[in-house]
Amino acid sequence: MKQINIGISGFGTVGSGVTRLLKNNQALLSERLGVKLQIKKIADIDIETDRGIALPDNVLTTDAYALINDPEIDIIVETIGGDTIAKEIILAAMDQGKHVVTANKALLAKHGNEMIEKATEKGIELAFEASVGGCMPIIKTLRESLAGNNILGINGILNGTCNYILSKISNEGLSYDNALAEAQEKGYAEADPALDVNGDDTAHKLAIITALAYGMHIQLDDIFTEGITQITPMDIQFAHQFGYCIKLLAITKTVESKNAVEARVHPTMIPYSNMLSNVNDSYNAVSIVGDAVGEMVLYGYGAGMMPTASAVVSDIVDIARNIKIAARDRIPTLAYESRYIRQMTILPIDDIHCRFYFRFTAVDSPGVLSKIAGVLGKYNISINCVHQTERKSKQAVPIVMLTHHAKESDVRKALSEIQTLEVVWDPPMLIRIEDAH
Amino acid sequence: MKQINIGISGFGTVGSGVTRLLKNNQALLSERLGVKLQIKKIADIDIETDRGIALPDNVLTTDAYALINDPEIDIIVETIGGDTIAKEIILAAMDQGKHVVTANKALLAKHGNEMIEKATEKGIELAFEASVGGCMPIIKTLRESLAGNNILGINGILNGTCNYILSKISNEGLSYDNALAEAQEKGYAEADPALDVNGDDTAHKLAIITALAYGMHIQLDDIFTEGITQITPMDIQFAHQFGYCIKLLAITKTVESKNAVEARVHPTMIPYSNMLSNVNDSYNAVSIVGDAVGEMVLYGYGAGMMPTASAVVSDIVDIARNIKIAARDRIPTLAYESRYIRQMTILPIDDIHCRFYFRFTAVDSPGVLSKIAGVLGKYNISINCVHQTERKSKQAVPIVMLTHHAKESDVRKALSEIQTLEVVWDPPMLIRIEDAH
Repeated sequence: MKQINIGISGFGTVGSGVTRLLKNNQALLSERLGVKLQIKKIADIDIETDRGIALPDNVLTTDAYALINDPEIDIIVETIGGDTIAKEIILAAMDQGKHVVTANKALLAKHGNEMIEKATEKGIELAFEASVGGCMPIIKTLRESLAGNNILGINGILNGTCNYILSKISNEGLSYDNALAEAQEKGYAEADPALDVNGDDTAHKLAIITALAYGMHIQLDDIFTEGITQITPMDIQFAHQFGYCIKLLAITKTVESKNAVEARVHPTMIPYSNMLSNVNDSYNAVSIVGDAVGEMVLYGYGAGMMPTASAVVSDIVDIARNIKIAARDRIPTLAYESRYIRQMTILPIDDIHCRFYFRFTAVDSPGVLSKIAGVLGKYNISINCVHQTERKSKQAVPIVMLTHHAKESDVRKALSEIQTLEVVWDPPMLIRIEDAH
Repeated sequence: MKQINIGISGFGTVGSGVTRLLKNNQALLSERLGVKLQIKKIADIDIETDRGIALPDNVLTTDAYALINDPEIDIIVETIGGDTIAKEIILAAMDQGKHVVTANKALLAKHGNEMIEKATEKGIELAFEASVGGCMPIIKTLRESLAGNNILGINGILNGTCNYILSKISNEGLSYDNALAEAQEKGYAEADPALDVNGDDTAHKLAIITALAYGMHIQLDDIFTEGITQITPMDIQFAHQFGYCIKLLAITKTVESKNAVEARVHPTMIPYSNMLSNVNDSYNAVSIVGDAVGEMVLYGYGAGMMPTASAVVSDIVDIARNIKIAARDRIPTLAYESRYIRQMTILPIDDIHCRFYFRFTAVDSPGVLSKIAGVLGKYNISINCVHQTERKSKQAVPIVMLTHHAKESDVRKALSEIQTLEVVWDPPMLIRIEDAH
């Protein structure tokens, strides 16, 4: 049986998971592939710590170039993370004609175009199923299963930490800080959770799938990103009363202009009838709408050692199946043949239209509602419903409103003006609403 | 640009959908594939009815063999349905070296092994993504995305008609007959709904995915199948009180013996915490558990002209990508290389263990519960909870019980014996429970 040799660069959580999976299920993989997948070398700066995986001598090395320069290695798996050494390793591996599998969304979001160009130039495969949505086959679904569809939009819950925190606030009434602490305790959140909770990790993933959905270059910098740190139990409670839950969504959709799309990450109110509202704890899910399929949802673990390893191995399997039969250039990396990559822009957040939730903290005196509504009206923002709690004289009370569709720039102007009203305390809270695709 | 020619055999709903999609999205497909997909001929006994699709002259023919014998046609799409003419056409097409795409689950479930053998022998591709779960990429997910996983189990809602009926009974309190009538009115159910409501259509689909999950031959005859016609609003109501909903599930799972699996179709009580409980109306969903991924769920339209067409076109895309680069034998049809296909049996229903819901109609007199419980105890069936409604002297009342895990054969014996008790009227109702994978 033909043997395909694999080098794993980075022996952390994901690297260990991939090693474990390739080892434990080696026989199964051979039965499915008709080739033997063999880990030839694993590189890491730390080759002393026991990962609980028995390996033959000479597999572990501290020299990543020992993998890249080994002519017998066919596929390099990059599980280092970050966008410095990982990038260097990947580019060097491609230069040596190695196929590359990575789960590195930050790197792809920031430098993916350059890497994809290099892969095309070198005629090798750059695969990254594990970079978005963990175990869920979102890359394969976009590039293959939905190839016959014009993708109209994608809504994704793509960060397990944020979803865990929001679920805990929502279902158990925890405060943000306590929910975060619990996420850290369970290992879902990093000691420094900023990349997750500020939405950047989700934006990295959205940058990748937006490119694949529409056949455009990866454009991270144009994605509007807002995290979950401002969300309070009170907002979740109000949302619930209106029939909505709050999720950190990655949203992309086509707009009327053929040369632009929306792509944004922010806390979003979605109705309980939306499948994504049932996605709890650290699970991820992505809802894709195509012109033929209608809505399709993928759901599963968005992170974790073995689910991520499963996705990495699925990429290895794809590449191995190509190597086995000497197939090249079967599927274009960005889902479209490179000469058809479209020049599209991401719509500035100011130009998007959606419904909004506002929560104002205002003095409870007569005429307050009228003053707020007056400013909103001035900016063409039409109110759909209002919730004002019982009066407690001279105290600040929350006034909550849901709007009809309004333009973001109008909303910002209106809120700035409302904030200057004497009767309004604290900056207003704004949450965008998505009722349906 | 290279052109790949397609012949469509059967110009009904699915055939029309495929034609429409290939035509409407032809440019998009070319940009993604780098080849032009061209419909060369469409065969149907009825070429007079206007399907609302403009076609060049000479595309329509009443002679299916005009497609098969056309040397320029690369791929035959079989959308005839049934297991007689469709089978003949597919085998003849393979004999001519054509690749075949079909959505025909009944045919595959009954004659799939023979057809797969022929495809292997002829070195052509037999693709059937649309045969299970409509637009959802379950075949691709099992064969490719989860290739690194030992599949541990699959639970699927795979028949839109049944799910529509059960949703309507459950959410709107309709009777079975009214829910069926509504499904027929909306076009979800056939005039003769037997194949759907008796579970056979679901069993056809389960037969296919069971084979792919474990690398075994398709074994339709061994799948226990029970439909939804006996389900009453009362049972749905009771299930709800216990925190469950009732879905027609296709269930397969591994058992301790390595050479057997479970595969069964029946109404099933699942807890509301299960993602599948949120799948309503005519939507389908499938939950797959693998040893690395944990649980993954796919959700989407399981039927309908364009969702089904989307899946058919995804198969055409896969084949076209192989033709483009002259790739052959990339992925084995049954997910495992043919020499590794396992000799496995499906466990007889008598041998399965699960939890059960019973509803007895019994005279409301002292000692009834004790008599019933006595028989259950005799057969080692342990009761988890009981619900007995208010007493109305001398009338029959429902007594509902949930059991702990019990063996099906014991349950059958116990229910037979209970049915002979004088105090028990009507045959007992039995619904199997699945709490988790």
